[in-house]
Amino acid sequence: MALTKITEVGVAVKDLEKATKLFVDCLGAEAGEIITVNRYHMRYRMCRVGNVDFELMEPLGKEGIIADYLKARGEGMHHVAFAVDDLEAQLASLQEKGVNLIDKEPKELHGGRYAFVHPSAFVGVMFELIKYPEGADLP
Amino acid sequence: MALTKITEVGVAVKDLEKATKLFVDCLGAEAGEIITVNRYHMRYRMCRVGNVDFELMEPLGKEGIIADYLKARGEGMHHVAFAVDDLEAQLASLQEKGVNLIDKEPKELHGGRYAFVHPSAFVGVMFELIKYPEGADLP
Repeated sequence: MALTKITEVGVAVKDLEKATKLFVDCLGAEAGEIITVNRYHMRYRMCRVGNVDFELMEPLGKEGIIADYLKARGEGMHHVAFAVDDLEAQLASLQEKGVNLIDKEPKELHGGRYAFVHPSAFVGVMFELIKYPEGADLP
Repeated sequence: MALTKITEVGVAVKDLEKATKLFVDCLGAEAGEIITVNRYHMRYRMCRVGNVDFELMEPLGKEGIIADYLKARGEGMHHVAFAVDDLEAQLASLQEKGVNLIDKEPKELHGGRYAFVHPSAFVGVMFELIKYPEGADLP
């Protein structure tokens, strides 16, 4: 198992515009476009801070995983993502070790593939493993 | 304001040995030595995963910031740290923008200097800014 590069820190936020302004004005973040992910009832925007992207995630309405997260824990860090070369091999290795995966099979998004590990398997830290598409603009 | 490099993801854990084993066995992390910080009533160990260190922090007893964190939120991500060149300038810039700092003046530890930003100032994300000593072994 070799995770070599952290790419994202996911953050659940109530107000995407307000959060973006904070990251841009106070940390000099470079803000990307807003992208809606209906699958998760949320919209997000990457805010690049040096060699990592903060994925600011805002719920669409009162349902869905980000809305639930905000209700349970309030705003804050939600997950941390790493780029991997061989996503299937990493998932197989984790399953072999008895680690509880949220996504046993990779899901697709924007030409890339990803899978989440259950935070209960990792002292409350939710890992996302991402196989980026060729030429992806990594931080 | 220019934060260029994420160096740590701090994680509050109940059992440092158990958490270390998880990071080493399942993610191939490289575990550092255990270091006690009486100031914060905790002990920690860095677990290096690629280009970032997970700082696994365990409370010493039932009091202190990590014990309080565990009581309030359970295990999980506690803070995220960036290396900075000019810590004083960064803190001055944040204060000028009205950002609430936990440490208005840098604190010293192991030859380096650091300051925490209050998570209420950043959508629940606690930032730590660190001026590392010369020759520090950064991830």
